Amino acid sequence: MSFSPIVKELVEALKALPGVGRKSAQRMAFHLLERDREGARRLAAGLQSAVEKVGHCQRCRMLTEETICGICRSPARDPRLVCVVETPADVLAIEDSGAYGGQYFVLMGHLSPLDGIGPDELGLDVLDTRLAAGEIDELILATGTTVEGDATAELIGELAAAHGVAASRIAHGVPIGGDLEYVDAGTLSRALTGRLRLAGRPAGVEDA
Amino acid sequence: MSFSPIVKELVEALKALPGVGRKSAQRMAFHLLERDREGARRLAAGLQSAVEKVGHCQRCRMLTEETICGICRSPARDPRLVCVVETPADVLAIEDSGAYGGQYFVLMGHLSPLDGIGPDELGLDVLDTRLAAGEIDELILATGTTVEGDATAELIGELAAAHGVAASRIAHGVPIGGDLEYVDAGTLSRALTGRLRLAGRPAGVEDA
Repeated sequence: MSFSPIVKELVEALKALPGVGRKSAQRMAFHLLERDREGARRLAAGLQSAVEKVGHCQRCRMLTEETICGICRSPARDPRLVCVVETPADVLAIEDSGAYGGQYFVLMGHLSPLDGIGPDELGLDVLDTRLAAGEIDELILATGTTVEGDATAELIGELAAAHGVAASRIAHGVPIGGDLEYVDAGTLSRALTGRLRLAGRPAGVEDA
Repeated sequence: MSFSPIVKELVEALKALPGVGRKSAQRMAFHLLERDREGARRLAAGLQSAVEKVGHCQRCRMLTEETICGICRSPARDPRLVCVVETPADVLAIEDSGAYGGQYFVLMGHLSPLDGIGPDELGLDVLDTRLAAGEIDELILATGTTVEGDATAELIGELAAAHGVAASRIAHGVPIGGDLEYVDAGTLSRALTGRLRLAGRPAGVEDA
């Protein structure tokens, strides 16, 4: 197509965004240039500033431009309870639930030997030091439900055990509001093996 | 949520993109900062440069950083055939079809008196001058199929008639490959009133 070079370059650059193909990138470029140049300027400045200044929290590895992030600094959060997640988006999802008052440790990925991602790339040396220092009472492992996520959780669980720190895995099962018939087989299988005994009932095999 | 100010600002800025909500904006910000800082830098530069340099072609109003755009300058295009469209994206769609060898005139919108968009905002003064100069043999009106698009096409048709220039409206009807049962009522109605007589057949009412 006969776009001018600068418009073409902008469309190409927009395609770097996840989930944005050629058509969406064109629509975005036209929208910004036609109707929202102020927004385009703000986005350019925001990107520039974030790329230059945002790094990782030295304590929990969350994305932040500060040395220690807001959650790690907050006196309202329990520093002895640490939830281990794979990505900053996971932190966000848990924060949105409003159900957690501890701190986090963000791995920025999961074990993936083929991609050269081992314990050190996930910052497990940092976590090890914190566990050894006796700073943490419990680790909640909220890594993904993939094979890699499970393997990562297992390794961190061993690390915790070596330091005598309790570790737990978040529960996996049928989502609240979910109809059994629409739940996939893997989730149902986890929901069955992870079943909890009801108080006052006899048998049960919750530690299956 | 407890994002750091710069990350929060980047997420907000990304929400300026059409079709991008809070969740997508967060995902984009994380992706750029975690995995594609080079892409983020390129996008920042692309936006900066486009906002500073891209304006409109003085002949056809297409988005371009040049005084006259590539299509208007191209000796391969017929300058006496001009297709009138509402947006740069429309130019793109027609170019992608490979079925057109003329030039364009981009209105950058359609008549919308309530939004203060009248003939001058659509550049019809520029088009009028070109029609008066006898530069154009035929105008193809490819404005939208909305009420406003139809009104805009009608007004430009009158302009063309006043200068004795032929004007036509692109055909609207059943899409190629489209099943009749899935075509909406409005399109079917246009397909029926716009029907064309087959060569060699008797009657027919193609000018209904």
